[in-house]
Amino acid sequence: MATDIQETYTPRSEIDARLKRLRNRLEKEKIDAALIMETADLFYFSGTAQQAFLHVPTDGPAILMVKKDAQRAFEESSIEQIRALRSQKEMAPVIGSPKTLGMELDVLPVNMYRYFQEQFPDTEIVDISHAVRSLRAVKSAYEIDIIRQASRLSDQLAAFVPRVLEPGMPEIELAGLIEAEARRLGHQGMIRMRGWNSSLFYGHIMGGASAAVSSSLASPTGGVGTTPVFPQGSSFAPIRSGEPVLMDMAFGFRGYLSDHTRIYAIGSLADDLLAAHDAMLEIQELVKNTARPGMTAGSVYELAAERVAELGYADNFMGAGDGRVPFVGHGVGIELDEYPVLARGQKMVLEEGMVVAVEPKAIFPGRGVVGIENTHIVTKNGLEQLGRYPEAVVIV
Amino acid sequence: MATDIQETYTPRSEIDARLKRLRNRLEKEKIDAALIMETADLFYFSGTAQQAFLHVPTDGPAILMVKKDAQRAFEESSIEQIRALRSQKEMAPVIGSPKTLGMELDVLPVNMYRYFQEQFPDTEIVDISHAVRSLRAVKSAYEIDIIRQASRLSDQLAAFVPRVLEPGMPEIELAGLIEAEARRLGHQGMIRMRGWNSSLFYGHIMGGASAAVSSSLASPTGGVGTTPVFPQGSSFAPIRSGEPVLMDMAFGFRGYLSDHTRIYAIGSLADDLLAAHDAMLEIQELVKNTARPGMTAGSVYELAAERVAELGYADNFMGAGDGRVPFVGHGVGIELDEYPVLARGQKMVLEEGMVVAVEPKAIFPGRGVVGIENTHIVTKNGLEQLGRYPEAVVIV
Repeated sequence: MATDIQETYTPRSEIDARLKRLRNRLEKEKIDAALIMETADLFYFSGTAQQAFLHVPTDGPAILMVKKDAQRAFEESSIEQIRALRSQKEMAPVIGSPKTLGMELDVLPVNMYRYFQEQFPDTEIVDISHAVRSLRAVKSAYEIDIIRQASRLSDQLAAFVPRVLEPGMPEIELAGLIEAEARRLGHQGMIRMRGWNSSLFYGHIMGGASAAVSSSLASPTGGVGTTPVFPQGSSFAPIRSGEPVLMDMAFGFRGYLSDHTRIYAIGSLADDLLAAHDAMLEIQELVKNTARPGMTAGSVYELAAERVAELGYADNFMGAGDGRVPFVGHGVGIELDEYPVLARGQKMVLEEGMVVAVEPKAIFPGRGVVGIENTHIVTKNGLEQLGRYPEAVVIV
Repeated sequence: MATDIQETYTPRSEIDARLKRLRNRLEKEKIDAALIMETADLFYFSGTAQQAFLHVPTDGPAILMVKKDAQRAFEESSIEQIRALRSQKEMAPVIGSPKTLGMELDVLPVNMYRYFQEQFPDTEIVDISHAVRSLRAVKSAYEIDIIRQASRLSDQLAAFVPRVLEPGMPEIELAGLIEAEARRLGHQGMIRMRGWNSSLFYGHIMGGASAAVSSSLASPTGGVGTTPVFPQGSSFAPIRSGEPVLMDMAFGFRGYLSDHTRIYAIGSLADDLLAAHDAMLEIQELVKNTARPGMTAGSVYELAAERVAELGYADNFMGAGDGRVPFVGHGVGIELDEYPVLARGQKMVLEEGMVVAVEPKAIFPGRGVVGIENTHIVTKNGLEQLGRYPEAVVIV
């Protein structure tokens, strides 16, 4: 799995194409320039995630201004104009005084915003976060190739679980062993989430009742965790025979994520849980066969939810009780919570090249979680599923 | 290490004392109420890190309003008034229309701020982030006890490294094995950082030249990482005999962090690097014996930097070249980048009960990193060091 990091630098043709799309969007929205700052966006448009600011005017060249580490930014980024910043004030002459300047206001902290307001009193600062997230939602062939690789690694990790799963093992110990294998396979560690106060540590590896506990995360599964400070994921509870063991893991490879869930059980699993698992597989097939470019993300969810109700799992789908979340999937890429969101009411229209994690799951309080998750590419003909590891409950 | 999560809920006496200090501070700064939202602050003042808003008026009871998961917040928090929020609009009658409302403007995203400005047009929203971070910097006996436990776990993890360190092993594979042991010992996984765009995955486990590569992080070490998207930490480079192997790990236990660094080498290490390591140990002793309540954080740094220059390591201290960062330590607690910052020019005055990670390190480009890090309590008599694992370079 060894990869020379230089070989993973984003090619210039990619950066050029992304900046062109950004400029077109800015022009369409009559915004004079963008100042990109958030790590994932910065990487997307410049190829580097160093501490930096990327200025993209509609009528001039993009300029990358780097606080730390400038030398690495020079190596990583194919932007032609890169400058080391000794002080943030050196940005002023580069930015000038545009009428409107777009920033990522969904994530930019207020104190930084106030600083920019003071520095550019004649400029209106406008939100470009929806535009940027919409652009990033449609992946290039280059990006899809990396996500394919990440998904193959998810499959390899799924195949590893039966080798270490043992009754009586605390969830957190099982998680450690699987996470170590993920690292050996080249997992980057960090999983980026955009939502404020949202965070994930690899994913959710949990057994039985504790897997069915809801959390603060907008996710069908939560988990008890080890502390109320990070109230999700693996706990100290032991894995028991006969309960569903959930491995929902995001594999981060070369900056892109594959999101992948499989269910295991030691010895056996009750028939009604196996049936619920099969129902979730049917929902996955339904979504794969109906989702098409041109459909809204919300209508995909509605079709899934309708069929779930017919199958009798409305009360267990994507949570139980107040913990239910009305969605069936989400975009993935550099961040785990990208556009589109396959959720109730979402008007965003699916496009070819979007990449979505579809994750129908059934939650049974006190008993556990069953269901499936794979990462898929939106194609003309429906979803192309990347995950290949067998989808039935794996009895160990 | 199994811990029943209920036993880790923050006691009511702690929450009451913290809220009292917050109210005193608000009164002193003539702020009518605080609305606490950031995960770490929310946990500190309420005992829960669910998705919630904590309203703390100076003239009435604190009210916790929970979006998800309300049931868990009821269990975790000893706040008397807890309400499940169906919509954010239900917050308006609780908050009323104070003249001034304090929020964490160092981290609050602009779009959320704009929402609150619209909801409370007659209220001035003011920044309480410095106040909140200052309050959190001084730990209670209860918090210090948890940090002591975390630090003992750091020591156990340091003792584990010689069992798995082997020449030729990729850094990322070594990291995986150490991280798995950390999980087995009860590591919570997630390491919280407050700084925008700042993130850390466990810490930095790296060998030789790649450990000496600077990164975007405001930290003496960076590392190559596996991808420019997360350009720090372990890479695919193999660990080699005769080079310093850095294990700088934050141990997260029950929500609190211990920050801890030890250096290992397979076979042997060059005399000049061993000498530099000893110099860093001398700097640690100097800081331990001079830092006192009443001193500014900046003066602690200046004393250390002065002695470093006398010892001849000015060009290697806390980075090399443009990668140098003018600090020698930082507060730790729920977040890794807490107050006080032992850095050039910092006016914050040390107080009894503050907890700091002191981390004098010498960076040799092309060769590696030596030095030490321990977590310490600020006491009347200087720093009480928590880490106990031997501090010399461990030759394996």
